[in-house]
Amino acid sequence: MQQIIDFILELDKLKGVTRKTRPLGLERQENSAEHSWQIAMLAASLAPYAAEPVDINRVVAMLLVHDIGEIDTGDTIVYAEDGWEERKAAELAAVTRIFGLLPAAQAQRFMSLWQEFEDGETAEARFAHAADRAMPVLLNLANNGQSWRENGISHARVVQRIGPPIQSGCPALWDYLVERLAHAQQQGWFGAD
Amino acid sequence: MQQIIDFILELDKLKGVTRKTRPLGLERQENSAEHSWQIAMLAASLAPYAAEPVDINRVVAMLLVHDIGEIDTGDTIVYAEDGWEERKAAELAAVTRIFGLLPAAQAQRFMSLWQEFEDGETAEARFAHAADRAMPVLLNLANNGQSWRENGISHARVVQRIGPPIQSGCPALWDYLVERLAHAQQQGWFGAD
Repeated sequence: MQQIIDFILELDKLKGVTRKTRPLGLERQENSAEHSWQIAMLAASLAPYAAEPVDINRVVAMLLVHDIGEIDTGDTIVYAEDGWEERKAAELAAVTRIFGLLPAAQAQRFMSLWQEFEDGETAEARFAHAADRAMPVLLNLANNGQSWRENGISHARVVQRIGPPIQSGCPALWDYLVERLAHAQQQGWFGAD
Repeated sequence: MQQIIDFILELDKLKGVTRKTRPLGLERQENSAEHSWQIAMLAASLAPYAAEPVDINRVVAMLLVHDIGEIDTGDTIVYAEDGWEERKAAELAAVTRIFGLLPAAQAQRFMSLWQEFEDGETAEARFAHAADRAMPVLLNLANNGQSWRENGISHARVVQRIGPPIQSGCPALWDYLVERLAHAQQQGWFGAD
């Protein structure tokens, strides 16, 4: 029991990992714990639109664990262009440490969910990636492009970076976003890159 | 698709609903969105200790939706003694409104999970309640009784209010907590009521 308690208290640190997006109507930055909850809800709501039939429970479980490595590494904006390999190695070390706090059975289950998300090779992982990529875009669209403007992210960079994973996991959502992103561009909600 | 987007943006408001507990090491109060994520992780980790065999996916799904009504009602500390019936009626009205933003199939699924949690009559709901009740206690135990001291909550009140649901859903966790709560009392981490 103490191992599980140590693990869950370690997870508390994800509430202090900040992202670039701000929650609607709040001045502070979003943290990765509340983001993990919201993308699990997004995936559960979007399930009928998955590109292929998915086990939605595994999608939700993957989304709940996929950012836990950020406790050691911090969050990196999806539009960063360098250092992804080093970052992925650091995240693997982080989840190995953090899931390693648990009894072996639970550690193995979470590690396998985390790895499935990273590999992105199952229908469930592809759908989970679509939800994860789409959420900050949806918040930016509702927030006059807040984090795009603050971080100088162009329309082309957004489309190039998030288009393929969203189209692959949830094509109907991508069709929706293409139109909204074009409208956002007309509004001047993007940076110049 | 627009209905799902409207729903998920409405959910963003749960990030602004504050609770009495503070995340470890942070000055701010915890919000109900990050709390929902953490109790889903607690339940998933604790699954082998459930009082009865449970479908852990349904437990997780219940925990992810159970606080959504607080978007309209705000959070009430579990030790509040009055107004629970009015509060429950208000929460029902809230989730009816919020889930009602979704297409009927998704609305129905979330409402049925929410209602199962409220009714507390299945093994899954009892285990979910145990995780929900235990989490702020675990944070308080790791935080020198922060919210008990700040809100004048006595040891007797904690044991009376959270003992039965935790014992019913996860007896091994209650055995663990009884000892830790006695130790906390010796440390003077409770209010006088």
